[in-house]
Amino acid sequence: METVKYTLTEQQMPTAWYNIQADLPAPAPPVLHPGTGQPITPDDLAPLFPMALIMQEVSQERTIEIPEEVQSIYRQWRPSPLYRARRLEQALDTPAKIYYKYEGVSPAGSHKPNTAVPQAYYNKQEGVKRLTTETGAGQWGSALAFAGALLGLEVLVFMVKISYQQKPYRHALMNAYGARVIPSPSTETQAGRAILAEHPDSTGSLGIAISEAVELAAQSDDTKYALGSVLNHVLLHQTVVGLEAQAQLEMAGDYPDIIIGCTGGGSNFAGISFPFIGAKLRGERDVQVIAVEPAACPSLTRGIYAYDFGDTAHLTPLVKMHTLGSTFVPEGIHAGGLRYHGMAPLVSHVVQLGLVEPRAEPQLGCFAAGLTFARSEGILPAPEANHAVKTVIDEALRCKEEGTSKVILFNLCGHGHFDMQAYMDYEAGKLRDHEYSQEEVAMALAGLPVVG
Amino acid sequence: METVKYTLTEQQMPTAWYNIQADLPAPAPPVLHPGTGQPITPDDLAPLFPMALIMQEVSQERTIEIPEEVQSIYRQWRPSPLYRARRLEQALDTPAKIYYKYEGVSPAGSHKPNTAVPQAYYNKQEGVKRLTTETGAGQWGSALAFAGALLGLEVLVFMVKISYQQKPYRHALMNAYGARVIPSPSTETQAGRAILAEHPDSTGSLGIAISEAVELAAQSDDTKYALGSVLNHVLLHQTVVGLEAQAQLEMAGDYPDIIIGCTGGGSNFAGISFPFIGAKLRGERDVQVIAVEPAACPSLTRGIYAYDFGDTAHLTPLVKMHTLGSTFVPEGIHAGGLRYHGMAPLVSHVVQLGLVEPRAEPQLGCFAAGLTFARSEGILPAPEANHAVKTVIDEALRCKEEGTSKVILFNLCGHGHFDMQAYMDYEAGKLRDHEYSQEEVAMALAGLPVVG
Repeated sequence: METVKYTLTEQQMPTAWYNIQADLPAPAPPVLHPGTGQPITPDDLAPLFPMALIMQEVSQERTIEIPEEVQSIYRQWRPSPLYRARRLEQALDTPAKIYYKYEGVSPAGSHKPNTAVPQAYYNKQEGVKRLTTETGAGQWGSALAFAGALLGLEVLVFMVKISYQQKPYRHALMNAYGARVIPSPSTETQAGRAILAEHPDSTGSLGIAISEAVELAAQSDDTKYALGSVLNHVLLHQTVVGLEAQAQLEMAGDYPDIIIGCTGGGSNFAGISFPFIGAKLRGERDVQVIAVEPAACPSLTRGIYAYDFGDTAHLTPLVKMHTLGSTFVPEGIHAGGLRYHGMAPLVSHVVQLGLVEPRAEPQLGCFAAGLTFARSEGILPAPEANHAVKTVIDEALRCKEEGTSKVILFNLCGHGHFDMQAYMDYEAGKLRDHEYSQEEVAMALAGLPVVG
Repeated sequence: METVKYTLTEQQMPTAWYNIQADLPAPAPPVLHPGTGQPITPDDLAPLFPMALIMQEVSQERTIEIPEEVQSIYRQWRPSPLYRARRLEQALDTPAKIYYKYEGVSPAGSHKPNTAVPQAYYNKQEGVKRLTTETGAGQWGSALAFAGALLGLEVLVFMVKISYQQKPYRHALMNAYGARVIPSPSTETQAGRAILAEHPDSTGSLGIAISEAVELAAQSDDTKYALGSVLNHVLLHQTVVGLEAQAQLEMAGDYPDIIIGCTGGGSNFAGISFPFIGAKLRGERDVQVIAVEPAACPSLTRGIYAYDFGDTAHLTPLVKMHTLGSTFVPEGIHAGGLRYHGMAPLVSHVVQLGLVEPRAEPQLGCFAAGLTFARSEGILPAPEANHAVKTVIDEALRCKEEGTSKVILFNLCGHGHFDMQAYMDYEAGKLRDHEYSQEEVAMALAGLPVVG
């Protein structure tokens, strides 16, 4: 069975990111200042982010140029390959045509360097010396550590304590790149100390780790904060994935009927889908888009669409998003990159507009799908990506049932080489499915601030 | 600092492997039958290998065509990139030009699939249903498991017991690809049972694992044996690395003054260097070639050049090679892929001919070099590859001292994502250097059969 790979030359690489805000029929609701309840201004965000990123956050321009130095670093692993999954199609005996973009070729093994590099670049440009961030599964922390090493910035990572303990190899990778990794909650911040005073045994959460990273960044002029998902500028940087896929599918002579991505904070999903959703919004071409989240952390399918904080200590601005409540601590599933209480405001907005269909998947079926993929395509996906793979297989089998040959595109956002414990636990029968009921979610939402 | 990457199109990929046997001034000494002391015949090898591979083993043709199906699978990750290490050059402030071929882009993360795929292919062609093999660090076992999954062959891996215990994630990866992994010595073979009877606590060695895999293959018609290094046909398949590098350096307008590779069994070293050594042998272009082995397993620098067995139970034919004795069990260094008592006969032969300069490096300096590389180039090398990186840095600093601008090429044969424990132990100061003295080696060699 032939490998079918579509490779762009470096000259064909996108030179600008795509900003979906330019094509939205209605703008996404504004971010609010938690004190005043008024829309925040760029100045409000200046303690945390360099001005170039703040301007991207609010930009309404359709395209934003990728700086030459960022393009140059992208070229280390980009353009990433687009594959036709011929062996998977054969294994499923489906008439569907399945394409996947593979982001595991980056040195950190996932799509995260697509935004880590420009974030480090703009901070460096504005004289920042140190970046703080949080990480759960560790993919984002590794990516920022990589970008910091290449651009000469110090990186300080607050890693959710349970992940720090369970995934020593992930923080070893960050250390190898020269970053400092601190298990969160820690005694290094007010937010961390407050949590530890109340819950000395706290194993942490992304929300807590964000509080710690934000607190340190806000205190010091040469230190800023970097976030690996959720924000508009992060999603913007990831569109390089979808833009490349558009050019590669053109080479293949195909256009997707269905696009599928897994969603945690929303960045890899937005990266693959936003350029296509933009074409749909501009009336150029229709497409069905599916966002797949874990049933154990179902913000899109079971959360409410409301203003909420991005962190547990309520240090961030208020953003309107699908949320399970900022104090929600999701089940310890292995797809750690999808364990976030909220969803990117832009992803929430396109779901509200009916442009994207959300689905939730329990983890066991996702692992089974991942192994089917590994044994046919030869690449072992990260547990996060398995949520997309599961849905791709479902849709391909539906095509078989219906006798239709749809074109399916998905983003294989990372490899699973740092997630072997998850596969071992799965094979040993140690994992179980957990689905949050509407009642449980309602309880989790009880603490939500009521705004807007 | 700009990324400089040289990418071949798929059309520019090599369509034939390069066989150095065609250009050698004297043929390598023949492989001997251990019973008769006479050169072995293809028929002697038929229980273990498919005839196509046996014919490659003894071929004197300069080029051997890569089957179309193998080329097609290669295209999943090949051509692999050649990078100019501009950031490393800057970090070292050297006038040397450093290029590296990066084989970590394969789905198994190393150069090993370059031979795993054709070996699985030829076996499949000849009706074989099952492959047995051994693995130490696990890179080879993962690669054969990957190839078996893609080509529909069962794979049975005997994994050195100490590695099986220390590297659960490596066998988890093989399992994910559908392979069965057995810690060696095992009770499944005569060879394993004999070792266990004498040493119930044996932690195994590559030599023992080879005995087990060979024994099972010899017993069954639909089962053959696959080896990840040492043999001529394995080295042949790896020349795709050096052939691509030749084309890429031509794009760069450079030719290497120095080629550096790490050596365990010899396959990645041969892969990068043999096409260039061939050009030298044909009088086309001179080149200095350095083979770097661990000081803890110094077959080329401290072993003797003599006939020896490839395995501990003495089931393999006798090959003339640099060896520390087939019962030698090297120190448990983390560069598990370099812990083999012998050296590929063809690599030994070119060393004997004075075409290659061997060096031995203790591990601590290699880890330090690997971290320097990771923080400048953004890729964390496997501990094996660090031996090459250490020597590259030494040579680049020598250029700085001498004020010469040499062109240095090396093979970054794999990433270190499965070797994070090694980096953690290094950072924690738990590793030490062990260098075998000539006396220790003499003792290890005492058990060597005296032939030829």
